[in-house]
Amino acid sequence: MTRTEEQQRKVEEAQRIIGRDFDDPDILLSAITHPSATEGKPVKFSYERLEFLGDSILGAIVANEAFHEYPELDEGGLTRIKVALVSGTSLAEVAEKLGFADVIVFGSSERGTGRRGLHSALENVYEAVVAALFLDSGIAGAQAFVRRTLIPKMSVEMAREPENPKSALQEKLQEEGITPTYKLVETQGPPHDRTFVSQVFAGMKALASGMGRTKKEAESQAAKTALDALGFTKASKADKAKAKREKKQSRTEKKNKG
Amino acid sequence: MTRTEEQQRKVEEAQRIIGRDFDDPDILLSAITHPSATEGKPVKFSYERLEFLGDSILGAIVANEAFHEYPELDEGGLTRIKVALVSGTSLAEVAEKLGFADVIVFGSSERGTGRRGLHSALENVYEAVVAALFLDSGIAGAQAFVRRTLIPKMSVEMAREPENPKSALQEKLQEEGITPTYKLVETQGPPHDRTFVSQVFAGMKALASGMGRTKKEAESQAAKTALDALGFTKASKADKAKAKREKKQSRTEKKNKG
Repeated sequence: MTRTEEQQRKVEEAQRIIGRDFDDPDILLSAITHPSATEGKPVKFSYERLEFLGDSILGAIVANEAFHEYPELDEGGLTRIKVALVSGTSLAEVAEKLGFADVIVFGSSERGTGRRGLHSALENVYEAVVAALFLDSGIAGAQAFVRRTLIPKMSVEMAREPENPKSALQEKLQEEGITPTYKLVETQGPPHDRTFVSQVFAGMKALASGMGRTKKEAESQAAKTALDALGFTKASKADKAKAKREKKQSRTEKKNKG
Repeated sequence: MTRTEEQQRKVEEAQRIIGRDFDDPDILLSAITHPSATEGKPVKFSYERLEFLGDSILGAIVANEAFHEYPELDEGGLTRIKVALVSGTSLAEVAEKLGFADVIVFGSSERGTGRRGLHSALENVYEAVVAALFLDSGIAGAQAFVRRTLIPKMSVEMAREPENPKSALQEKLQEEGITPTYKLVETQGPPHDRTFVSQVFAGMKALASGMGRTKKEAESQAAKTALDALGFTKASKADKAKAKREKKQSRTEKKNKG
């Protein structure tokens, strides 16, 4: 494959950041190429397939490091460490610090995407680079890169249990002298398969409602939505994953229309 | 570690099923030991930590197989194949067929758990065995086991997009001559951060409500809940994972009390 001058320069800069020359630089070029730059070309020319593979390879590398580093932690603590380390925010931060922002190949439609698009591209490129290293030089190559760039952030603090949303909301509201109350507003479905809807109030004001398989779960969900609406939490990983899927879907729909 | 007669017999049988003698059979013993059999002992004596590691190793092995087997699939199709292959149902089925049900070491409190407890234990043991193989004989050992026992189930059919819940509900209800209708019943939060609640009706009868960040998402969620309530779907993977976490938590709480 012949590379443009921009592509060639970015591949070389990426190799410098990674600290390794690739046997097949085209794999690395795919790993740093945003889908906006490959419209109409086969899927293998952007980072999307590599991101899928890299996500799993990275998960295995991080799980293995945490498993050996913290022999006293149970699977709950280990899972929280892994989730924190491989979160979008964590990976985007690491990728930015390494200087990947300047080597991503964007198409013209994405150049103006701004901060948010860049954040997500940085995360994806980090995962895709892990896959590219795995394909080009085996698990050892991928592992060396992750150990150098991500594992130094790993800490036992990441294993701490998150607060439960009802206590968190109570704490926040009590700073303003308010105690939240809960009301069951609806019960759906047959007895063996109920869904509950609960509402949480600050005084007379309904803050949010939540659904769940138990009353407790519905209240917890309502508290969580209230915390989000009041701006006390960042978007959860699941929400972000969803937003990402929806963005991809709308991109696909656009492509199919165009 | 001295093993009881039951433990020794089960380790030998597990080695026969896996087709490999372990350098360190104690790792395999942990992988087939349900947490109910290790009360009061350190976490490493049951399969829970190994299940954490095995889940990630298995994910990487399956992702790698799918990536190479289906070069024409995009990351969405590859993800659906991976999710289907490593689902609880898929792993429990494979583990049962291999004969793992007879080698799991349960504690006395779990012997009467019945079908559901066994299903979840089979899934966990499969993942833990993958980790045990990885620790005892490297990634090649784990890969050989997964290739022999799980990968033969992999098919391109698994990459198909799931139906959207609104069409699925419409189809189901139209078999009975009913067209579902949707009503927006509530809007929460400030304009830039809205949550919508929609209800779905069959004639005058409210079937379910759903919440979402958009009206479309709220309706889709309502349709999904209605499908569940009407018994048209199996519990989702997320629901199952949640049920599993809650079960673990209640077990931990019991332990802490006792």
